Amino acid sequence: MTVRVGVIGTGMIGQDHIRRLTEVVTGATVTAVTDLDAARAAEVAATVGAAVLPDGAELVNSPDVDAVLVTSWGPTHAEHVLNAIAAGKPVFCEKPLATTAEDCLRIVEAERAHGSRLVQVGFMRRFDPGYRQMKEVLAAGTLGAPLMVHCAHRNPTVPDAYHSAMAAQDTAVHEIDVLRWLLDDEIVSAQVVTPRATSKRFAHLKDPQIMIFETVSGVRIDLEVFVNCQYGYDIQCEVVGEDGLVRLPDPAAVNVRTAAAGHATAVMQDWKVRFAEAFDTEFREWIASVATGAEPTGPSAWDGYAATVITDAAVHSLESDGTVVSADMKPRPAFYGGAA
Amino acid sequence: MTVRVGVIGTGMIGQDHIRRLTEVVTGATVTAVTDLDAARAAEVAATVGAAVLPDGAELVNSPDVDAVLVTSWGPTHAEHVLNAIAAGKPVFCEKPLATTAEDCLRIVEAERAHGSRLVQVGFMRRFDPGYRQMKEVLAAGTLGAPLMVHCAHRNPTVPDAYHSAMAAQDTAVHEIDVLRWLLDDEIVSAQVVTPRATSKRFAHLKDPQIMIFETVSGVRIDLEVFVNCQYGYDIQCEVVGEDGLVRLPDPAAVNVRTAAAGHATAVMQDWKVRFAEAFDTEFREWIASVATGAEPTGPSAWDGYAATVITDAAVHSLESDGTVVSADMKPRPAFYGGAA
Amino acid sequence: MTVRVGVIGTGMIGQDHIRRLTEVVTGATVTAVTDLDAARAAEVAATVGAAVLPDGAELVNSPDVDAVLVTSWGPTHAEHVLNAIAAGKPVFCEKPLATTAEDCLRIVEAERAHGSRLVQVGFMRRFDPGYRQMKEVLAAGTLGAPLMVHCAHRNPTVPDAYHSAMAAQDTAVHEIDVLRWLLDDEIVSAQVVTPRATSKRFAHLKDPQIMIFETVSGVRIDLEVFVNCQYGYDIQCEVVGEDGLVRLPDPAAVNVRTAAAGHATAVMQDWKVRFAEAFDTEFREWIASVATGAEPTGPSAWDGYAATVITDAAVHSLESDGTVVSADMKPRPAFYGGAA
Amino acid sequence: MTVRVGVIGTGMIGQDHIRRLTEVVTGATVTAVTDLDAARAAEVAATVGAAVLPDGAELVNSPDVDAVLVTSWGPTHAEHVLNAIAAGKPVFCEKPLATTAEDCLRIVEAERAHGSRLVQVGFMRRFDPGYRQMKEVLAAGTLGAPLMVHCAHRNPTVPDAYHSAMAAQDTAVHEIDVLRWLLDDEIVSAQVVTPRATSKRFAHLKDPQIMIFETVSGVRIDLEVFVNCQYGYDIQCEVVGEDGLVRLPDPAAVNVRTAAAGHATAVMQDWKVRFAEAFDTEFREWIASVATGAEPTGPSAWDGYAATVITDAAVHSLESDGTVVSADMKPRPAFYGGAA
Repeated sequence: MTVRVGVIGTGMIGQDHIRRLTEVVTGATVTAVTDLDAARAAEVAATVGAAVLPDGAELVNSPDVDAVLVTSWGPTHAEHVLNAIAAGKPVFCEKPLATTAEDCLRIVEAERAHGSRLVQVGFMRRFDPGYRQMKEVLAAGTLGAPLMVHCAHRNPTVPDAYHSAMAAQDTAVHEIDVLRWLLDDEIVSAQVVTPRATSKRFAHLKDPQIMIFETVSGVRIDLEVFVNCQYGYDIQCEVVGEDGLVRLPDPAAVNVRTAAAGHATAVMQDWKVRFAEAFDTEFREWIASVATGAEPTGPSAWDGYAATVITDAAVHSLESDGTVVSADMKPRPAFYGGAA
Repeated sequence: MTVRVGVIGTGMIGQDHIRRLTEVVTGATVTAVTDLDAARAAEVAATVGAAVLPDGAELVNSPDVDAVLVTSWGPTHAEHVLNAIAAGKPVFCEKPLATTAEDCLRIVEAERAHGSRLVQVGFMRRFDPGYRQMKEVLAAGTLGAPLMVHCAHRNPTVPDAYHSAMAAQDTAVHEIDVLRWLLDDEIVSAQVVTPRATSKRFAHLKDPQIMIFETVSGVRIDLEVFVNCQYGYDIQCEVVGEDGLVRLPDPAAVNVRTAAAGHATAVMQDWKVRFAEAFDTEFREWIASVATGAEPTGPSAWDGYAATVITDAAVHSLESDGTVVSADMKPRPAFYGGAA
Repeated sequence: MTVRVGVIGTGMIGQDHIRRLTEVVTGATVTAVTDLDAARAAEVAATVGAAVLPDGAELVNSPDVDAVLVTSWGPTHAEHVLNAIAAGKPVFCEKPLATTAEDCLRIVEAERAHGSRLVQVGFMRRFDPGYRQMKEVLAAGTLGAPLMVHCAHRNPTVPDAYHSAMAAQDTAVHEIDVLRWLLDDEIVSAQVVTPRATSKRFAHLKDPQIMIFETVSGVRIDLEVFVNCQYGYDIQCEVVGEDGLVRLPDPAAVNVRTAAAGHATAVMQDWKVRFAEAFDTEFREWIASVATGAEPTGPSAWDGYAATVITDAAVHSLESDGTVVSADMKPRPAFYGGAA
Repeated sequence: MTVRVGVIGTGMIGQDHIRRLTEVVTGATVTAVTDLDAARAAEVAATVGAAVLPDGAELVNSPDVDAVLVTSWGPTHAEHVLNAIAAGKPVFCEKPLATTAEDCLRIVEAERAHGSRLVQVGFMRRFDPGYRQMKEVLAAGTLGAPLMVHCAHRNPTVPDAYHSAMAAQDTAVHEIDVLRWLLDDEIVSAQVVTPRATSKRFAHLKDPQIMIFETVSGVRIDLEVFVNCQYGYDIQCEVVGEDGLVRLPDPAAVNVRTAAAGHATAVMQDWKVRFAEAFDTEFREWIASVATGAEPTGPSAWDGYAATVITDAAVHSLESDGTVVSADMKPRPAFYGGAA
């Protein structure tokens, strides 16, 4: 069975996912799109032979749509996801699930009422081969209990619209999700401190930031977020356990030796390239679950809620001079795996 | 348009490619299969809803088959490829294109008579991201003219049926193809010498072997083929130019530090895993070319012929105590890019 | 001229330095030793033909002693160093310079009164080739202003006598000194937080600890101190600047590939081996300065004072549940390079 | 006891060793020097307070000389070494021991007649920590029997006087010695082939060269010698055994990440820096052996003879278009460890 996907939002990421569903992943076809910018929607639709529908509600309820992909502007996510749940259709929602914890909870409640999982949130790192290898090593137990995690999330630069709270909301949110999954542990507090700022960007932007998270079991995570590091897109992650450590590999790249460069390896510049394989796997596994009628195995609505609560705590800390802020999270329902 | 592929040969590699065409690569469907072992053919066909046809000739000519994939026993390749050319259908043939240089030439002549390229040979390394990065570095010219290449091709072990000539025919043939492409140069001679043999395998098997190739422009290639190296599947390649060198990366893998292992990274054991991404890209690009009616851009019938001639020279050298043996190759027709 | 060194304290580290002065470094001879344990002193003296003197004061004032090496128990350091200054003799004092900031200041004042530098403190990392390369890179300015430093100091295990405050006093003190030098910046506050503790050691020991330091210019340093990490002695240091980063190399070690270990490099177990070259260079440069009558260029009495003040702040933070504690340091006198 | 060393030859390498004996290694003093260039001898002597003697013979026999260091022009080595043996004094001779196999044999015979080892030849790689680690790994047996060795010896460039035979005589001779020691095996044949030559140097110079050696037990060694590789001084060595491999590490160097260089590590340019630690250890161990009256443990006169015979074979092969040339070596006397 070919899964007929309807796509809400045809901006950059929407277009990239449409390309992925059309050219990379088997078993899917894009049958309908919608966008506030109708002209853009029409242009994108034409490239894949999809229908253009007037809005998200109509798209969700179209008989030609088996599953919904939400890649519109963040504040609209909740409405589309709730519509999809109401229609009983699988929905893949790019992060964030919703921009407020309250809206995330509404989705969680709607999904529980529906009785089976329909929602997957687009945290792609869980599908990256490096993180998956780390998870295997941790699961094998050879490192003992995890005690600390050291991470860095560096971008070469960011657009003008990027503001200080986005370091948590848009950037660190990826580590927040992948570490909850990697450690199989919940984050209970966040703290954000600001070292000397880089002079390479706007005065108003606090960059870099150091984010510190603690988990239920006492693991301490430090995460450098540095979005104007100049030199590349560089993701580092090291988990230190009682008996050893495991470190995320740099992407494989040819080694060159020349007089000009010494012994050098290129550093990636683009997150879409860095996590291309993760994105592909993410959609391949999602389409496979939809095709077989199985519940999705990727990040759940609960994970989307947790990420939003923890992100809120981080922003709150940033705005209150680095106070430690508790993540005010509801107890995890059994529906989402109980007390993990 | 979905490309309807007919598959001749449903053994291990055939099954893996059927899975790839069905589950990984978009735009293809397997509509027909055939195999000497009719029961196996039926079993495989059932998993993907394909028809079972009595033999290769019927499969090639079936109206439900747009393109042919040949993964049968090597000695049968030439016949199936010639049939596909006769039918004017694109054909992807696993290596070798044919087991003799004469048969390869018959295919080359048939394709030239047809007037456009129909044949692609299954040398997947040209699609590996590491080799592709090497090619970019060489093309950029920062290393100057290539002078030497050092390679190693190591397998943890091989089955009992593996004999000494297979080191060239089945193993080194991958380097022969990828280096001709990487250097954009032709190999003119081969020499095979045998160091002290490993005691870990049959006395009759000459393992390891060192193969030395020279190209038209004087590049000297040394290739260690060691198919019972015990520790893993390990592919090394370093090109040394006048101004520097470039080295194929090891696959990215997590780094672990423990008391038991020190600072360690896992070594891969399986070529199917090592080159999984290359195989996927190979088929994605092939299906895309077929779907658009374009000529394939992968290894050509001429490349298949050249590989066979050079492999023959290597086996000849092995059997004559390491004499240098010229590769007795016809001039390259303009149809295949002239004098490259 | 051969420098005649008198050694106060013939324990493990004293013996190692005596060996170094006798067998490794040229231009020095050990002429006198003393130790509370007179038998041990006699035994060590016999191996190098040195005299055994009854106490530190007599040794300092012996006409056969040109320069003094203090490797006795920490609480006795201040007295011996003050004696050496009074005698106008160069003195190399193993860390700590003194166990209290007050005693360090007394030494600082005595040295200033003397009018030229006589004291060098035994922080050996400034002599390690890796840190020296980092300093060159930072001095060259290609990384721009430093913003953050990430460090780890891991020991495989520690003896029973090791208690929680020693993580700062004995272990982190090396990073405190080397980072002040590397950044050419002063540390102004310390914070120590405790992640989940390892179960591999005594319940009373807080291990690991994370120490956070801030400098005058706003650089934020995080340092993992984990003294029972099981797997090895592992020192990591990464300085992140506005335009890039520099990372301390792991020690060069052969790479081995086997079925049992994968692709592996041994991890060092012993700090004396890890920093052997640093210790040798430290003493070579010190002896050279003494021989020529020049002032020592290694860590000064002021550096010893600063390390003690900062260490005290860290211990204070540890004992007050991770409060940020200011380093209560006097202004730096011009005698010691002014306001660095 | 301080060893009084007399130095014959005060050129660049002689001066470097005098500095080493004076400033780095303990237990030695340079008491006498001589050089064909008397003015240079006088200048060097003045820096260390040594006497200038008129010639090697007088220096060897001086009562103020306990041990002799020969760093003069190669063709004079044999005479000085024979004089030292005649005088019964330990002698350290820079490579080559002698420029002809016949002269090496005369030294071997003279030393045997003397009855104990006096001669050490200056092959410093045996003292490099990386090669020593390789030797330990091989000795431990975890790799099984060695089968192949892959090496590269690259210099950024060479002076005008360098000619094609020097690739073996001056450059590869270091690998010849260190591999005989590493494998504990004897080389029985040499072959030198020439890939396409670099255009970066004189037309008359054959550069690069590939040297192939075989040992008694059948190990096959390939060695790339490329003395105008432009990018740095780069030494590679990998031993492949039945059960795995071991690789010489690159020197430890800081890793830098910047936009301009990517992820980069400096490549060394200078052999004196690359093997500085090896040189220091070489002299430290030699002086220690002389001081205690023990026989030297470094490369023997026999090793010097073997290196010359094998080098001759390599040059012979180069001059006869790459023929395989047997190393025409006498049986190894029991005095030098028998049949190794």
